[in-house]
Amino acid sequence: MKEIIIKSSSHTYPIYIGESIRFQLNEVLKEDYSSILVVTDDHLEKLYLNSFLQSLNHNKVHHATIPAGESSKSIEQFYQLHSAAIEYGLDRSSLLIAFGGGVVGDLAGFVAATYMRGIDYIQVPTTILAHDSSVGGKVAINHENGKNLIGSFYPPKMVVYDIEMLDTLPLKEIRSGYAELIKEALLSDESFYDELLNTNLQFLRNEHLIEHLEKGITTKATIVEEDERELGNRKYLNLGHTFGHALEAELGYGNLTHGESVAIGLLFALTISEKEFDMDMKVKRFYQWLKMNDYPFPVEQLNINKLFSRMKVDKKTVSQSIQMVLLKDIGVPVMVELGNEKINEYLFLFLEQLRQRENWE
Amino acid sequence: MKEIIIKSSSHTYPIYIGESIRFQLNEVLKEDYSSILVVTDDHLEKLYLNSFLQSLNHNKVHHATIPAGESSKSIEQFYQLHSAAIEYGLDRSSLLIAFGGGVVGDLAGFVAATYMRGIDYIQVPTTILAHDSSVGGKVAINHENGKNLIGSFYPPKMVVYDIEMLDTLPLKEIRSGYAELIKEALLSDESFYDELLNTNLQFLRNEHLIEHLEKGITTKATIVEEDERELGNRKYLNLGHTFGHALEAELGYGNLTHGESVAIGLLFALTISEKEFDMDMKVKRFYQWLKMNDYPFPVEQLNINKLFSRMKVDKKTVSQSIQMVLLKDIGVPVMVELGNEKINEYLFLFLEQLRQRENWE
Repeated sequence: MKEIIIKSSSHTYPIYIGESIRFQLNEVLKEDYSSILVVTDDHLEKLYLNSFLQSLNHNKVHHATIPAGESSKSIEQFYQLHSAAIEYGLDRSSLLIAFGGGVVGDLAGFVAATYMRGIDYIQVPTTILAHDSSVGGKVAINHENGKNLIGSFYPPKMVVYDIEMLDTLPLKEIRSGYAELIKEALLSDESFYDELLNTNLQFLRNEHLIEHLEKGITTKATIVEEDERELGNRKYLNLGHTFGHALEAELGYGNLTHGESVAIGLLFALTISEKEFDMDMKVKRFYQWLKMNDYPFPVEQLNINKLFSRMKVDKKTVSQSIQMVLLKDIGVPVMVELGNEKINEYLFLFLEQLRQRENWE
Repeated sequence: MKEIIIKSSSHTYPIYIGESIRFQLNEVLKEDYSSILVVTDDHLEKLYLNSFLQSLNHNKVHHATIPAGESSKSIEQFYQLHSAAIEYGLDRSSLLIAFGGGVVGDLAGFVAATYMRGIDYIQVPTTILAHDSSVGGKVAINHENGKNLIGSFYPPKMVVYDIEMLDTLPLKEIRSGYAELIKEALLSDESFYDELLNTNLQFLRNEHLIEHLEKGITTKATIVEEDERELGNRKYLNLGHTFGHALEAELGYGNLTHGESVAIGLLFALTISEKEFDMDMKVKRFYQWLKMNDYPFPVEQLNINKLFSRMKVDKKTVSQSIQMVLLKDIGVPVMVELGNEKINEYLFLFLEQLRQRENWE
């Protein structure tokens, strides 16, 4: 079992990574909680819930199940979970466990952040993608007019990453998680980037997965520890996300996974970076890796004008220009403001390139 | 203009108290906010909003109005204010101003705490009671099953207490505010308690009001600075509230004001304290002060069993006994766990005493 220690402004917490370690959570619980509420989704409930509840070995364990999928990050589900917590008699000394992927983590984390003004919670991520959201304490629900607009900074007391549960992940979800790992590699060092580009996701081995998660989490943790509230360097974690979010919103959530959208966003950011800074970002190799691993490129459905206006409403936008994270080199992110004209030009060239594929294939 | 500095775990902020100082807010704003949203209620909107908006002297000032009253501390109003903030294009560099009493402060403060994971906000309290809620960073909305169950600890950047706006307060609201001041006096020192017991609320002078607010806020600030998250001493601020909350809930919100309920709760806590610790808490003088100032005593409507079960569900309750704040002496609070039987006995005696009034009058 690996252990990574994260410092947040309010407390320090461990991230454990290993096989079957979810059943050991009971042993590492330090506090004597008055009761426990496990929040999960209906998909995971069938696969993993019962054995997990039993392993907790506490006489007041309750659970609440939400429908799987992004639409559960709603104000209604938020309120319903509060109702469940009240009904089960949770008090300030209770513990909430977010047992699931990013949706469960974000929603249940925000409930923990706000129930009686905040109770302890633990993340038990069940997807590769959730390695990203389970570190750093960002919790939120969606507003009908935008993702993650209602939320808090509220770090968990512990993250228990049991990679055994990742065995049942569909390839689409593995792709989604690896896009964020690629991002973290691009923000940290070239050897990690190379390592990932040599990984075939269809034949992923657990020892490699653990190693990649550990490196990705360490990269994210380092950035987040320096800048918990995203006043400075944490913004670099948005690498690939300005375009990625626009793509995800434009094609409708559920069509492309978050990570699949971010993957194309990363390709876009790398393409621009190469042009702006005249550096080799191994774009071609990255593109080939994406193709090898069957990342989707729904180029026919994309419209420059629509993508452009989506990018303008992204919440990281300041005034009239678009802020984007680019790379001066692998491991050297920089925030760049690009005027409307330039962004449009890059968008045009990028989509053309995707359509023709001539430069990369 | 008086200035009190409050230390919170995240930052230090000033509380200004003075006459007409709301129009000087613009001058003390340090940051260059991208836009401002003023939240108020429909009652205050008519009285004070326009001149306040004009004084802000910023080219992006928006406002949102909620219905006056406790029922606005709902999940629906919470979501609607988020919608308004999005519609007006507030970003992470925007400021929210809570312009109103405790309801506006709690609701708008919680919106500020959660909009894009937290933006700056300023409290401009318009009631005496709000001196209590505007210090200490507790923000919340109500759940249908309990008050303040959904919220955060999120201190403001500044509190601007313009006592000129207190001139229009009905006597009922002055009584409500002074109950919390009495509580703070009881938690701090006897001379402040005596001073308040010599104050006739019908002939309240501004210089005394400012002085009382300053002392009350300083008492509260001292406690809150030591224990922001209510793990220890902050619990003492619940003096009078276990019974007060039960009373308020039992008679229905809007019947008795919060402070009027707390006043009776304080009387109850003092009565028990005298018996438990054999000390003189000047209960008779306090009772006479309450009568002189027309605090209501709806004794006929009270039922011991109902009050008792309400006290049991109060969120400060731990397991089977009831935790109450009592006083060993003026300025010396102590947390006491009282068994069911004892509480029932005290309740019976207290209600009898209120009915007969023989010991106090």
